[in-house]
This record gives sequence, structure tokens and C-alpha cells, in this order.
Amino acid sequence: MAPPHDDKAAAEVNDEQIPKRPISNILFIIAMQTEASPLVDKFQLAEDPDSVFPKGVPWVRYYGKYKDLNINIVCPGKDTVLGVDCVGTVSASLLTYASIQALQPDLIINAGTSGGFKAKGASVGDVYLASDVAFHDRRIPIPVFDLYGVGSRQACSTPNLAEELNLKVGKLSTGDSLDMSPHDEEAMVANDATIKDMEGAAIAYVADLLKVPAIFLKAVTDIVDGDKPTAEEFLQNLLAVTAALDLAATKVVDFINGKSCSEL
Amino acid sequence: MAPPHDDKAAAEVNDEQIPKRPISNILFIIAMQTEASPLVDKFQLAEDPDSVFPKGVPWVRYYGKYKDLNINIVCPGKDTVLGVDCVGTVSASLLTYASIQALQPDLIINAGTSGGFKAKGASVGDVYLASDVAFHDRRIPIPVFDLYGVGSRQACSTPNLAEELNLKVGKLSTGDSLDMSPHDEEAMVANDATIKDMEGAAIAYVADLLKVPAIFLKAVTDIVDGDKPTAEEFLQNLLAVTAALDLAATKVVDFINGKSCSEL
Repeated sequence: MAPPHDDKAAAEVNDEQIPKRPISNILFIIAMQTEASPLVDKFQLAEDPDSVFPKGVPWVRYYGKYKDLNINIVCPGKDTVLGVDCVGTVSASLLTYASIQALQPDLIINAGTSGGFKAKGASVGDVYLASDVAFHDRRIPIPVFDLYGVGSRQACSTPNLAEELNLKVGKLSTGDSLDMSPHDEEAMVANDATIKDMEGAAIAYVADLLKVPAIFLKAVTDIVDGDKPTAEEFLQNLLAVTAALDLAATKVVDFINGKSCSEL
Repeated sequence: MAPPHDDKAAAEVNDEQIPKRPISNILFIIAMQTEASPLVDKFQLAEDPDSVFPKGVPWVRYYGKYKDLNINIVCPGKDTVLGVDCVGTVSASLLTYASIQALQPDLIINAGTSGGFKAKGASVGDVYLASDVAFHDRRIPIPVFDLYGVGSRQACSTPNLAEELNLKVGKLSTGDSLDMSPHDEEAMVANDATIKDMEGAAIAYVADLLKVPAIFLKAVTDIVDGDKPTAEEFLQNLLAVTAALDLAATKVVDFINGKSCSEL
């Protein structure tokens, strides 16, 4: 991943970063427990009894072997006081950082639910691979700082994966709000977003910083430019869409097994 | 620090967290190099030649001894591609996490510039201690998730420090944008904010997670509810206000020397 405003440099960085050896360690980063649980079952993973994370953090890790792969699934867990999933960019970036340090993954897969824009062809239940990620709620109107705020990055290129699994491909825009303000909407349009989440660009930032390839698998729970209130539509569709996400995630892992990042 | 909606529990947690022994290790977290440099000079700190941070991150650490105190100043540094200071909540939370892990501080001081609300009595050049911190750009309109998004926390209580140094005290609201959208403004009013920054609540979140007391020292560079464009006013006042901030920070450290957190 690299900023898209210098495509040549970005391509070079990507080539250097992408290992040619088969992928051995996959790290799933999943924001909500509801999204993670079916995958934990599917891959028959065990919860880590001795956390690799510091005392006090709510982060949860599941691990195990699936085919030729070591699979880790990490979740930010439940807020220790409020009891809700620690969604959003701050928790996601911390968890990504700590997990890369502790687990040294070959590939990060950020899997989760997302909003989708029907104007860009998204429907509830669609599963997307993100081609690019960016933030839509970090407005810093000073030259160059503005680009830093948007933080646009390319995901690890996966043309074979997208074609083989017949996955839709679109740009992902990330922000810390579930709703969409007019300012957010303007920035999402500028980001050319098809899908919207609350973690992706933060995970991409940390993965880029520590030179780990990352892909973003997002299933659409709600239509951002539709008539229904986001929170209601999100909660209504969460379980059914999570099943579609987990099916896709399993197929992605089956496809990855035995391949290097450059073959994706 | 603890959520303010349960004051009894918050007070108990604070009492447990605050060590009674004299503070020995202070960690300054400062977002911009311009804000940090005068303090680095004042305390005669040296840049760490062998970074305690992972390869690839732009984070910078200065360290040294001042009176009876070990002082570390960490900055998120310059974006490796864009060359601007890595401001905002994602970088700040990562740096806070990694610094606590590596340096085990007794007290965190997040020092920096901020916007101020003239309606709440703030003027350019004022230096504030934050009593509370919260986010204003994480809207999640689902019960309990909404509280998680706002992430309101009390700073380490420092009544003696505020009185002795005659510092103003007010609530701090944090967001990743330098400007202020109508949605942000509404949330800042709900947060009862006197000052506005781009890092504080994220640093408070991580400090709370890892049980390190934190205080927030913020100097006002621009008036949020004034007539001048924020970016212009910010850049115009940055150097002069930084001098006021650094003077206050020095007095804070002089006051802290020889005291425990509970004496602040």
C-alpha cells in the first residue's frame, strides 16, 4: 500500500513489500465479535488463554491451523466499562499495531460489515474487496496536511482473488461515525467510495507503516444513500450479512492457501 | 481517568490508579515538532539514536534528566511520504501505546496547541489544563455505542497544580478535523468544551486502558467561534503561542518535581 498520488513510487513500494514465498501466517482483524464468531467456529480456532497483549486491554485473539495456514483472528473486544464492541479507528489501529508486533503476519485481512452506496452499484449482502482506502472525516485544510488527513492508500493488489471468487471491487472510505454528515458525504464522494466502514483506513495506515500487505473484505449491511435509517438497517441485516461475509472469508482463505501475496 | 457517567466508580478507579510515590518518569506526548522543539532545548534532552520504536515508524523520542525527573518527549514525527507532522487520533494513540510499553511512565503530559471557545472564556495565548476529555466526531447513534463514541473521560485531577500556576481549567473536545462542521459543533457543545484539539481524547483512551495517569496542557492558537478562518489563525499564532505553552510546561514540570500524582 502507498499513497495513490505517485503511482510509480506506489508500484515500486508494493513490489518490494510483497513477499514471493507462500503465505504462512494470516491475521484477520475483525471489529465486532458477532462478525468474528462464525469464522472462529469455521476454522476451529481456540481462544488464547495467555494473551499476547498487555494486561488491561480487552483485545481478544483466536488462533489455530487451517490447511497449510496459521490463522489468527483478533478482535478489539468489549469496552471494559460500557460492554460494547470497541469499534472505530483508534481501537483498530492499536490492535493492528500490537498484533503485527506480536504475531508477525504475512498478510492482514480486515473483514467486516460496511455501508454501501447504491449509486455505485452496492446492494445489501454484497461482499466487496477494497481496491483503495481513505478517511472521510479528517479534514485539515492546510496544503499537504489535507492529503495526510485523507490518508488514501491502495490495498494489496488481488486481481486473481477477485476474479476467481467473483467478488465486487470498490473503494472503501473510513470514518468514526456510523451516520453520515453532509461534510462526510462530500468527502466520501471525493474518495469515490462504493463502501463505507469505521476501521479500514486506520488498519491500512498501520499495515503500511509496518510494511505488512493488507486486504479489506467488506459485506454490505446497509445502503448509505438509501431511505432507511443506517442504525436500524445495520442492526436488522447484521446477522444475515455476517453469514455472507464469513462464507466469502472462508473462500478467500481457501484461495490463499499455498499461494504467495504476488499470486493473489 | 474513567467515564464521568458513574462518578463514584470513576473516583474509586482514580484513587487506585494514582500512585502515592514521587513521580519519577514523565512522558510528554506532543503532536507537532514545532511545539516540542523549545521544550527539548529547555530540558536539554537528547534524541534517541537507537529508537525504542519499531523500524519504519516516524516517531521521535527525546530523553534526559531534569532535576529529579526522567523526562521523555515523544512526537509522532513526520509522515514518511508527505513530510507533515502526523497529527490526529490514530498516530497519537499508536504513539501513546508504544511509548507506555517502552518507557513505563508514571505520568503522561499531552502538551499542545488547541482551538478555544470565546463563549467559554478562552482567548488566544491562554494555557489550559483539561478537566475532562471527549470526542466530538464519533457519532454512533445506537444506545451505549453512542457513549463509547463520545468516549468522555476525566483527566488526572490536578487542583493544586492549576491553583499554584494559575492555569485555566476547562473541558477538552477532540476530533480529527482542524475545521468544525455543524455536526462537530453540536457535539462540542454537548461535550461542554472550552478547548478543541486533535489528539487529547485518543491519548486519554490509551492512558486509561493501560492505567497511566494523564494530564492535558493546551495553549489556545485560534478562536473556534470567532471570525477568522481556523487554518489561517492557527498558522499565524503557532509560534508565539508555542512559547507560552513551553513556559507553562516548564512550570508544570518544576511543580511536579518531588511530588506524587496524588499531590498534584
